[in-house]
Amino acid sequence: MRAVVMYGPGDVRVDQTERPTIAEPTDAVIRLAASCICGSDLWPYRGADDVDHQPMGHEYVGVVEEVGDDVAQVRVGDFVVGSFFSSDNTCAICRAGYQSHCVHRGPGAVPGAQAEYARIPHADGTLVATPGPPADDLVPSLLAASDVLGTGWFAAVAAEAGPGKTVAVVGDGAVGLLGVLAARQLGAERVIAMSRHADRQALARDFGATDVVEERGDAGVARIKQLTDGLGAHSTIEAVGTQESMMQAIRSTRPGGHVGYVGVSHDVVLPGRQLFYSGVHLHGGPAPVRRFLPDLIDRIWRRHIDPGKVFDLTLPLDEAAEGYRAMDERRAIKVLLTV
Amino acid sequence: MRAVVMYGPGDVRVDQTERPTIAEPTDAVIRLAASCICGSDLWPYRGADDVDHQPMGHEYVGVVEEVGDDVAQVRVGDFVVGSFFSSDNTCAICRAGYQSHCVHRGPGAVPGAQAEYARIPHADGTLVATPGPPADDLVPSLLAASDVLGTGWFAAVAAEAGPGKTVAVVGDGAVGLLGVLAARQLGAERVIAMSRHADRQALARDFGATDVVEERGDAGVARIKQLTDGLGAHSTIEAVGTQESMMQAIRSTRPGGHVGYVGVSHDVVLPGRQLFYSGVHLHGGPAPVRRFLPDLIDRIWRRHIDPGKVFDLTLPLDEAAEGYRAMDERRAIKVLLTV
Repeated sequence: MRAVVMYGPGDVRVDQTERPTIAEPTDAVIRLAASCICGSDLWPYRGADDVDHQPMGHEYVGVVEEVGDDVAQVRVGDFVVGSFFSSDNTCAICRAGYQSHCVHRGPGAVPGAQAEYARIPHADGTLVATPGPPADDLVPSLLAASDVLGTGWFAAVAAEAGPGKTVAVVGDGAVGLLGVLAARQLGAERVIAMSRHADRQALARDFGATDVVEERGDAGVARIKQLTDGLGAHSTIEAVGTQESMMQAIRSTRPGGHVGYVGVSHDVVLPGRQLFYSGVHLHGGPAPVRRFLPDLIDRIWRRHIDPGKVFDLTLPLDEAAEGYRAMDERRAIKVLLTV
Repeated sequence: MRAVVMYGPGDVRVDQTERPTIAEPTDAVIRLAASCICGSDLWPYRGADDVDHQPMGHEYVGVVEEVGDDVAQVRVGDFVVGSFFSSDNTCAICRAGYQSHCVHRGPGAVPGAQAEYARIPHADGTLVATPGPPADDLVPSLLAASDVLGTGWFAAVAAEAGPGKTVAVVGDGAVGLLGVLAARQLGAERVIAMSRHADRQALARDFGATDVVEERGDAGVARIKQLTDGLGAHSTIEAVGTQESMMQAIRSTRPGGHVGYVGVSHDVVLPGRQLFYSGVHLHGGPAPVRRFLPDLIDRIWRRHIDPGKVFDLTLPLDEAAEGYRAMDERRAIKVLLTV
């Protein structure tokens, strides 16, 4: 089958590889309907993370081809959406809603989903079947639920976005933009998108942003305070993962407020004293997408939300390299790969 | 009047100073019934914080001597307990329960409470009157409510201690010990005190600790995991403020669990990536004691709790220097100063 492999930084190729098979009795093999490129795939692409002949892709929707003997809930032929971390969904950590930290999860995200087929561990605890085969136009939104929407949603939940709240969103990538959507869906009164790109500002407003702030750093913090009676946001979503973005998020939040951070931390060190006196709540990490999948699928199925709009470039799998380039150069917000 | 002044590190004296007077119409002046030495007073005493002729003390109970023209709720003659940060208790931050970050609070804690009299800003928003003059044996507990109990209580609330939860407590100082008491009062099923001092272990057990762990560092984390099915505590109270104690707390907590940290951070830098993958909630800072005071006074008044037991040494104000030495040398857990 064809699969996207990152040979090294900046070097993405589509290889012929072995089609995966059932390895554990709890596995499923799915035939992908679509896949996509994640913002986090750019870290190794840009040399910020080590990479060596890595099968790429951890966001996926598709049809179940084959299941192991112990798979009871997922059936061959089901159209499924899966979380980017596999989880048994039965351990104490999963039951508490933290499936991305399942005690039986693998060492990292589900690998190799930018491909024609993928093996999904713990199929029953990882995959959620849609009510039936989806209309074609729902596929991008269902694919988004697998990570980018689920992650933005978790960030909004971690930031305790809700009625009466003002939510600031640091980061105008796909996760941040879907954080805007999530915050509004969760009832936030006001959502401030921090962005200096017209196309992303437009999408943020389309997803429900009520305000846009172009300033960054001290000026960005000052602007957020100006918009919130000098207090700071009740809730802030951090969707980048740099020192600058984390401090921007913490400093933009009022004492007692909540920062939900989902940008994968790179070289972030938080100054303890500043954090102490900020009085904020801090919560985040790899999103337990599985917790939210049934609800997200339902909202998509009923066409209440259209998170698939974050895909502003669609390419065939064979042109994955161009997709990586487009995202790296910020010519595309997020690239969908048709399989 | 007599007042404790720290001339410099290790140099504590009792001076004759001017008795404070009403400076703002929202002030009250109180005659102290008792005061005490805080663990945080040891930071400057040990040279870890700058200090130069600083009037000491921010924990207090006493009788209102005089009030400003705008004070409406607190009356002359009331026996009052006050929070170590003054607050108007009416701003949006106070109303949200974060009085220690009141938009009108002073630059630091209420100063000069190790003295015969103290001026308390924002008297109506800072002080809470007891139902009447307290019995003598209640005074230490009421004094504890002013900071050390209020801070331990906030840590337990920030750590979301509650029914069915296992709570680990890092730090066996007075705050940590009262964090044990708070966690049990809040319904925690199991409270693990981390301590290697027999007297503190005994007090921890008296306050409701179900387990004691003597190990620290990797061994301490391993022991907590061993006691919690390999998962870590649901809730961890951090009551020290060092890099070691913060990492001990984060690493002892299960993904999705809560760390409540109240030790004043000194040279703490949190590694972003480790925090990200820990999946914990982090919340803390200077405790909004005022939020809890009515409830704490009620519990003390009804003799449901006896937090005054943390005072294991009582000295007259004139012997404050010996009190500092005793705490510095860990000969005393916490020193009460009679005025």
